[in-house]
Amino acid sequence: MRTLISAFMLLFVALPVKAETGHDLWLRKHSANPVKVVCSGNSATLSIAMNELQQGWQGETGASIVLAVKPDKSIKGDGYKLTASGVQANTELGILYGVYELLRRQQTGPPVKEEVSNPSYERRVLNHWDNLDGSVERGYAGHSIFWRSGEDSLAVTEKDKALWLEYARANASIGINGTVLNNVNASPKILSGEYLMRAKAIAEALRPYGIRSYLSVKFSSPSLLGGLKTSDPLDPQAIQWWETKAKEIYRLIPDFGGFLVKANSEGQPGPQDYGRTHAQGANMLADVLKPYGGIVMWRAFVYSSEDKDRARQAYAEFMPLDGQFRDNVIIQVKNGPVDFQPREPFSPLFGGMKKTSVMPELQITQEYLGHSFQLVFLAPMWEETLQSDTYQEGPGSTVARSTNGSLFPQKYSAIAGVANIGIDANWCGHHFAQANWYAFGRLAWNSGLTSDRIADEWIRLTFSPNSKERPDALKTRDWQEKFLIPVKEMMLQSREAAVNYMMPLGLHHIFAGTHHYGPGPWYAPKGTRPDWTPPYYHQADTSGIGFDRTRSGSNAVSQYHEPLASQFNDLKTCPEIYLLWFHHLPWTYKMKSGRTLWDELCYHYEKGVVQVRQFQKVWDRAEPYVDAQRFSEVQSRLRRHYRDAQIWKDACLLYFQQFSRLPIPYDVERPVNDLEDLMKIDLKWLHHN
Amino acid sequence: MRTLISAFMLLFVALPVKAETGHDLWLRKHSANPVKVVCSGNSATLSIAMNELQQGWQGETGASIVLAVKPDKSIKGDGYKLTASGVQANTELGILYGVYELLRRQQTGPPVKEEVSNPSYERRVLNHWDNLDGSVERGYAGHSIFWRSGEDSLAVTEKDKALWLEYARANASIGINGTVLNNVNASPKILSGEYLMRAKAIAEALRPYGIRSYLSVKFSSPSLLGGLKTSDPLDPQAIQWWETKAKEIYRLIPDFGGFLVKANSEGQPGPQDYGRTHAQGANMLADVLKPYGGIVMWRAFVYSSEDKDRARQAYAEFMPLDGQFRDNVIIQVKNGPVDFQPREPFSPLFGGMKKTSVMPELQITQEYLGHSFQLVFLAPMWEETLQSDTYQEGPGSTVARSTNGSLFPQKYSAIAGVANIGIDANWCGHHFAQANWYAFGRLAWNSGLTSDRIADEWIRLTFSPNSKERPDALKTRDWQEKFLIPVKEMMLQSREAAVNYMMPLGLHHIFAGTHHYGPGPWYAPKGTRPDWTPPYYHQADTSGIGFDRTRSGSNAVSQYHEPLASQFNDLKTCPEIYLLWFHHLPWTYKMKSGRTLWDELCYHYEKGVVQVRQFQKVWDRAEPYVDAQRFSEVQSRLRRHYRDAQIWKDACLLYFQQFSRLPIPYDVERPVNDLEDLMKIDLKWLHHN
Repeated sequence: MRTLISAFMLLFVALPVKAETGHDLWLRKHSANPVKVVCSGNSATLSIAMNELQQGWQGETGASIVLAVKPDKSIKGDGYKLTASGVQANTELGILYGVYELLRRQQTGPPVKEEVSNPSYERRVLNHWDNLDGSVERGYAGHSIFWRSGEDSLAVTEKDKALWLEYARANASIGINGTVLNNVNASPKILSGEYLMRAKAIAEALRPYGIRSYLSVKFSSPSLLGGLKTSDPLDPQAIQWWETKAKEIYRLIPDFGGFLVKANSEGQPGPQDYGRTHAQGANMLADVLKPYGGIVMWRAFVYSSEDKDRARQAYAEFMPLDGQFRDNVIIQVKNGPVDFQPREPFSPLFGGMKKTSVMPELQITQEYLGHSFQLVFLAPMWEETLQSDTYQEGPGSTVARSTNGSLFPQKYSAIAGVANIGIDANWCGHHFAQANWYAFGRLAWNSGLTSDRIADEWIRLTFSPNSKERPDALKTRDWQEKFLIPVKEMMLQSREAAVNYMMPLGLHHIFAGTHHYGPGPWYAPKGTRPDWTPPYYHQADTSGIGFDRTRSGSNAVSQYHEPLASQFNDLKTCPEIYLLWFHHLPWTYKMKSGRTLWDELCYHYEKGVVQVRQFQKVWDRAEPYVDAQRFSEVQSRLRRHYRDAQIWKDACLLYFQQFSRLPIPYDVERPVNDLEDLMKIDLKWLHHN
Repeated sequence: MRTLISAFMLLFVALPVKAETGHDLWLRKHSANPVKVVCSGNSATLSIAMNELQQGWQGETGASIVLAVKPDKSIKGDGYKLTASGVQANTELGILYGVYELLRRQQTGPPVKEEVSNPSYERRVLNHWDNLDGSVERGYAGHSIFWRSGEDSLAVTEKDKALWLEYARANASIGINGTVLNNVNASPKILSGEYLMRAKAIAEALRPYGIRSYLSVKFSSPSLLGGLKTSDPLDPQAIQWWETKAKEIYRLIPDFGGFLVKANSEGQPGPQDYGRTHAQGANMLADVLKPYGGIVMWRAFVYSSEDKDRARQAYAEFMPLDGQFRDNVIIQVKNGPVDFQPREPFSPLFGGMKKTSVMPELQITQEYLGHSFQLVFLAPMWEETLQSDTYQEGPGSTVARSTNGSLFPQKYSAIAGVANIGIDANWCGHHFAQANWYAFGRLAWNSGLTSDRIADEWIRLTFSPNSKERPDALKTRDWQEKFLIPVKEMMLQSREAAVNYMMPLGLHHIFAGTHHYGPGPWYAPKGTRPDWTPPYYHQADTSGIGFDRTRSGSNAVSQYHEPLASQFNDLKTCPEIYLLWFHHLPWTYKMKSGRTLWDELCYHYEKGVVQVRQFQKVWDRAEPYVDAQRFSEVQSRLRRHYRDAQIWKDACLLYFQQFSRLPIPYDVERPVNDLEDLMKIDLKWLHHN
């Protein structure tokens, strides 16, 4: 028997992989081959580029690479050209980007031929919702990497600087060139001298990697910080206060990018407090920053509790102002009209505003998609948004084209992603959440990349065995078939799975409590704004479910350009993925599948749970190909992922069944929790691990 | 749409059934047809019999029934003969039993022909593990129906008496004729005057229904209660103390049944404390009770922490004493050699002791089978034990025959069941736990009944729609096909399902903590007796799993009569259901299925969980046929049942996998919990609902 056991154990524990914390992200160290680098210039950025090549060269031993900053008409902005001899670019940063691409291609393929790559968006910006006390709003990976509380909160340590450099390098490697250092729900203190000094230190760490720093500002800062009587954007003293502050900032941070502003939104102050429009507020700040080349990213995330359809409001508020904004104002618009839900149709402001720069805001941090507990790859969701056709200038007027300058003239093009980064060893909490950071950067650079390609790259970079530790064979067929392909498939399915077990068929915002993690279709504590409660969104009663946004309802459909408006309005043509977003329908409404709406809902919830069960299997099969630490951390999170998917299904089916009064189809697995228990766990969600 | 909805809702809520608490057990009220009852005698018991007939007659309207106490050679003890004209019996109690059978058959079939029914066991006794403060050891249905704490704890109220009458009637209806009123871990106070007065009141309520009362006594009562210096069974003063006490008891309760004694077991005092044997201790009490016709039920549940195999000890201790016991002593032996596990081979004392009366002790309360949270029908387990062949007097020497007097001469035959009864409205906590009380009574009366027949009867009596509320059609084909058959199948599978998800293939006693509910194969706190910890029983290590009780191990196999000893000893012939009970085997041992032992374990755990998932489906489908209260209470418990089965599977597979170091087969669903979390929830088990 002993022989048999040994044989089995060998098979099972074969080829142990060294534990990894995940801190190296997609930039894991590989033993490099010697390479000769010829560089025509000399700067911090070029030194980085040369160093990266020498530390990471996986190509032919002794190859010679030329890095040339040399204008070329085919190269735009910080784009680059890869050639047989090396990298050419207009700018030093372009050289660095080209080097990262060259090294990436050595690990991910396909082989480099002569090719040019230019960025889709000029400004590719992370938004950190980091508070000055170190907490991170909607952050699930530990505290802020920029700010902390305590006595030494403002001291810049060597450890701080080392971490910021790693952060800058990771961002540069995927083309991110800007970062907003603090929460959009901004403290006025960020503009005080001591916090600006820390911002300066951060900016200095990021600068060689081409990352510009930005700050979120509170619109009432002149009053709150400056002690002025008003922050009215037309008040000369207020304007002067901002001018003085801008001067101070640019003295400290000469390449400062500009301000991000959340105004007149969810309790934040703004120009409307003084009887001024969003345009007047944004333009005042834009004028202040203009002399320095700074920009204003002005968020369109506004809604009041009075309106009967929150989804209509940003459009209603901002469209009349189209054309009134300065050319260095960009309106920052969330991908959907409500709020980063698992699935939303695109915001009609994309393409709707034609005379104003508009930038998409995506959420990398998984506020509504399972925090760092669930494996949800977001690239498919962003791809869905960016490739949605607005029809504003005829077919092909995608959201991407309507925001990247190719459809409308706009001085600046930009895209923002709300960061999922914290001081956790692996940066993002969930190892697979790193893929979302990666995907945002890659899509910001090239919004035409497919989710498949992004996942493929990321898996190869993040999990490919180091050549010294593992036989090279693993990188080839065996590794591809048994690891790469199934893991990629899992990632590509994961967002649809989340939609299935959370809110399929156009359901949205049925989360419990304010944590936006678990289910709470019932959640409506007394005194809460209706538009902050799920029943406002799902509208379920015995007659049916869904939000009527048709022409006979809130008429949100009319904010879309034809043929979309009619398509969404008409039950026959409305895509079923958006069905309950636009329509209130009886439980027995007949779906395209021939099933009733109620049955279809049940099958979607079931499918989501079964998908996660399958993800567990995929990952367990991947064990031989992953180091023990990352394997078991992901395995453990997938187990929780499954349990919570089950809870989502049970909660939603049992809650809605009270209205549908229909049985759950018997080929669907029964709920395994009682509704009354599920309704009690709201606040335990975040701690129940 | 409105029409469609209404149609669906009608279908779904059709034929509402009145809510039931379950308090009526299998004796639910039905509107009775008029019947004429002729009875030759006049007594409390006969009045009950006549009243039951008149209240419950479902036969021909105006029929005439004769109840005749008249000797008949074919009738034994309290047996009865059912004839075309009525019920004949040797005793009044026999008449009552015949009446209950007659009424039962009217509801369950088959039609009565002339037939005689005699009890398999003469004494059919419930053991209540009820403490005098009202708590119930291993009770999961609320506090004691006999005892309570507080100032008025000894006052006998009308409510008490009404409840005791209901209890007596339920027992009589299934043939139970004795009950031990207090815990085998007995307080000496039970023999004090005030508690005896309460026992007297209980006995009076039970008497007309033919239920004799018994008491558990602490062996050291002479010292603890009487203040004597010793309780040595050979000490004249101690003997005299018992004689005086017996006299007192029989003055209060003339038909008092006798004593139940747990001696020198788990810390309880006993004759060995005074250098005497179990026989000397039991015989002393037997002599004291003899003049009154009382008996001593002396438990064989003994084991010391020193012995290397707990399973061997009761046999080792008692076999040498065979023949030394008085004829009014019955050795009460648990069905298996360890302790009421989900599956054990029968105790070798059955049939082993040939010159001593031996009675089986079964556990109705689900200490090791999911408490009142899990639906586990125990009749199949008891049937398995009672029909096991001991081979002691050749083939056919079943456990039943070796204890009911048909194989060995014994003055008394008896069977005990540890009650699952408390003050919960439905008596047993889980509605389906009532079936175990029912099954015990029915098997005690007729140990040849099949589990199928018992379940069939119980379901018909417990869930059959009342004729006035529901169309009679429901009782026929539709009801049978859609309710009776699937629910019965669920019940019949439920014990094997529990074995599967708890401890398949002969595993035993791998429970967490001391509550014996959830899994705890790891449970071994410092300082705990090894034989109270699961690793003592599963013996898992990297080389394998299982307790070696073969001839080269503890040699427990030799306690069985051939051919069993050799059959259990030999891997080729040992039934796989007992495999790890008798053998320690490598993880890669090849099973009859061709699978490895490890894989086979995994598939059994998986199967158990999937079975419970199926039970949920069966029950949900039963909704139209059950009142709303019982439906939803059972539905809720099945949900918990599923969750806890999942936890069992995850805990055992993940724990044992640490030793097997083998992957869980990929067609088995992945664990959804982390082992480290499961190891923390030990003590939360009982409250986590």
